[in-house]
Amino acid sequence: MGRGYGFANRDIVSIRSFTREEIDYILEVSGTMEPLVEKGSDMLRGKVLAELFFEPSTRTMLSFQTAMYKLGGSVIGFAEPGVSSVWKGESLADTVRVVESYSDVIVLRHPLEGAARFAAEYARVPVINAGSGAEEHPTQALLDLYTIMKSKGRIDGLNIVLMGDLRYGRTVHSLAYALSLYDVKLRLVSPDLLKMRREVIEDIKDRIEVSEHTDLADVLLDADVLYVTRIQKERFPDLGEYEKVRGSYAVNLDVLKRAKEDLIVLHPLPRVDEVAVEVDSTPFAKYFEQARNGVVVRMALLALVLGAVE
Amino acid sequence: MGRGYGFANRDIVSIRSFTREEIDYILEVSGTMEPLVEKGSDMLRGKVLAELFFEPSTRTMLSFQTAMYKLGGSVIGFAEPGVSSVWKGESLADTVRVVESYSDVIVLRHPLEGAARFAAEYARVPVINAGSGAEEHPTQALLDLYTIMKSKGRIDGLNIVLMGDLRYGRTVHSLAYALSLYDVKLRLVSPDLLKMRREVIEDIKDRIEVSEHTDLADVLLDADVLYVTRIQKERFPDLGEYEKVRGSYAVNLDVLKRAKEDLIVLHPLPRVDEVAVEVDSTPFAKYFEQARNGVVVRMALLALVLGAVE
Amino acid sequence: MGRGYGFANRDIVSIRSFTREEIDYILEVSGTMEPLVEKGSDMLRGKVLAELFFEPSTRTMLSFQTAMYKLGGSVIGFAEPGVSSVWKGESLADTVRVVESYSDVIVLRHPLEGAARFAAEYARVPVINAGSGAEEHPTQALLDLYTIMKSKGRIDGLNIVLMGDLRYGRTVHSLAYALSLYDVKLRLVSPDLLKMRREVIEDIKDRIEVSEHTDLADVLLDADVLYVTRIQKERFPDLGEYEKVRGSYAVNLDVLKRAKEDLIVLHPLPRVDEVAVEVDSTPFAKYFEQARNGVVVRMALLALVLGAVE
Repeated sequence: MGRGYGFANRDIVSIRSFTREEIDYILEVSGTMEPLVEKGSDMLRGKVLAELFFEPSTRTMLSFQTAMYKLGGSVIGFAEPGVSSVWKGESLADTVRVVESYSDVIVLRHPLEGAARFAAEYARVPVINAGSGAEEHPTQALLDLYTIMKSKGRIDGLNIVLMGDLRYGRTVHSLAYALSLYDVKLRLVSPDLLKMRREVIEDIKDRIEVSEHTDLADVLLDADVLYVTRIQKERFPDLGEYEKVRGSYAVNLDVLKRAKEDLIVLHPLPRVDEVAVEVDSTPFAKYFEQARNGVVVRMALLALVLGAVE
Repeated sequence: MGRGYGFANRDIVSIRSFTREEIDYILEVSGTMEPLVEKGSDMLRGKVLAELFFEPSTRTMLSFQTAMYKLGGSVIGFAEPGVSSVWKGESLADTVRVVESYSDVIVLRHPLEGAARFAAEYARVPVINAGSGAEEHPTQALLDLYTIMKSKGRIDGLNIVLMGDLRYGRTVHSLAYALSLYDVKLRLVSPDLLKMRREVIEDIKDRIEVSEHTDLADVLLDADVLYVTRIQKERFPDLGEYEKVRGSYAVNLDVLKRAKEDLIVLHPLPRVDEVAVEVDSTPFAKYFEQARNGVVVRMALLALVLGAVE
Repeated sequence: MGRGYGFANRDIVSIRSFTREEIDYILEVSGTMEPLVEKGSDMLRGKVLAELFFEPSTRTMLSFQTAMYKLGGSVIGFAEPGVSSVWKGESLADTVRVVESYSDVIVLRHPLEGAARFAAEYARVPVINAGSGAEEHPTQALLDLYTIMKSKGRIDGLNIVLMGDLRYGRTVHSLAYALSLYDVKLRLVSPDLLKMRREVIEDIKDRIEVSEHTDLADVLLDADVLYVTRIQKERFPDLGEYEKVRGSYAVNLDVLKRAKEDLIVLHPLPRVDEVAVEVDSTPFAKYFEQARNGVVVRMALLALVLGAVE
């Protein structure tokens, strides 16, 4: 209470607009939400969240819904394919101004870079970006940080590996930026075709140690966190190339034999076979807990921007 | 309280079934709902609204959802395209009787004239017409009246212009009828092809002064309210004709130079270019506020028919 | 209270896993839910139900939604066609583990036999089967029993006729099994092509008297309950055969002249013309009340598995 970060009515558009202190505070508030998942709360009673998803993202959508419901609020809105046709022919500026007249906060998912910022400029109610274009997905980055913090007790001092599709994977860009606010070593493991974009690395390499690899074996030994993302077949011009890559960036019990015993494996889900099912029942696996953590982090964000927590 | 209009359990099928006194009372109750948008209410806790939309109308649907949520109630239901296939092969009479077994009030949208009245005859719970056929959309008419009342402080004595597609536009028929219960001058401005249907004019011309025009310039000077509706391309056999008409019935800053300075511009939304974006930031523009007013008017109607307000 | 059936956190996968005492208890708890339909309750406040419908079943879905809302809970989830594409490529085991991280109870509908049991094994939260494959639909069976009990005051000692498609109709299998726990005479009336599967009859014929017929006239005279299901055209290789059958298994006022005056007619809905509209206004007709009873039975089940009622 009263640390005065001024979250009330603030838009959550980009992870880049937060200081480390602000992120730490969001993670702290997230922790206070844990008991409310079980018992519910009236904190946001009478408040309405509008979900405006211009591309599908069911897990994110359901996660925000549950977050709102656990705090006693309500949810209106639409998912693809409905939403595009519904608002077709209307400018995003008009849609946002109509939808805000029915709601107290808007969660927006949009295929275009910058859509969330644009919406935030038009809306009087706070706008939370649930993914826009290829680069920003701030609430995913926050729940990833929260999961690391909760599992390891700290973020500073960790060796963190991001592996898989680091080029098109929306979540890794926001996460890499967020991690750069902490004292971590970041190792990027991917096939050449899917290396992280140059501008993201430029952006963070002055603050933290970043290295790029094509082989997980180079960095697994002292890794504390292994964050795996899906490699999509469509990215490869040649199917044979894809099949080869697919095997090299998969995690299974055999691979994990060479890992520290307190390594945690994260994945934004859904997975195909990047993480073998046999890993699920090991202490390494934190990806289902990660999904669950999305609820408390989103509860925290909703409570903050709606002024229910200061 | 206790003026005894007997709204509890009443169907809201047609604006024609209300007296002026009843409409005034609905507008008055709507005003009392304003503070509840901000702080919420438990008035309809435990009550369930079923939305049965046999054709799409997202704004109306979301508006009713928010109205129900702000009063503490819940919403079930379906929107197109789901709904038609879902209830396909079942008679509307059966669908209504099944759906009412899950709900306390039904909001129905249907492409056929008379569908709402038919549903109301079968249902034991109150039915609210959210648009049926080409003529009736009573809740839209009520929110239009509420917006005029709120902006101008009165309805009596005003010069009101309805402009655009007055033939197929569902909202203008219910609105014209509702306005005819007040002491207004009604000016209808449209291309010949889209003039208001003869029977609507016959119905109201004994009660109020109605005139028809093809040029806004004829009536703009002393207008207090300018209600603009969209002109749809599909109505025109010839695209050139449409292009010509489209420009003539658009409202922009240049047009508004000749208007009274306290004129208000309304539009049921979505707009395409009938009202230029440059108008949005002027005091003329009341169309986003109009969307917001839909929530309080629907809160009032739900509270009344469910007996939470007498 | 405290009879200790241990329903908290229990999965509702098959009617076969319940004893008669347990079913009687569910029916008793259902009765206590009746007043809460009118006035609502806070019993499940803060709890979230996830509906995971891999095939459409709108009535069941809406019924569960209303049940949850009447107890103060919330609902997230998806219906076909959305749901399949949403979770496509993800294993059911993963989907269940992600969805349970957003919810306190899962209601699953799935085209495959055994899907509900599989989901229940993976989920830590209770799973309620809302229909899986051709055989199990336990909540429908329970609401059918509840309707019989409520209408006749007892189940024991009744003559019960199941008529129509007894082969593919999902609801009749669970119902026949449930009835076999009571002291009833069960008469099965269907065309040869749509007779009840041998294994279902084998399963129950040691416990109760079961007889098969092709003509309703054979068993109508002393029937207390006539449960009618829809005969679908698609089941017949020959359209002429279908047309003949269709007429023979339809119920109308003329047929009912030969019935006991306190016979009740049930139907899981939707109907086409198996029960004539003229029956609706007679005391025989209990099918709309049956739909309504689905809400209280599902309220009871949700309250039980979530531990709100012991």
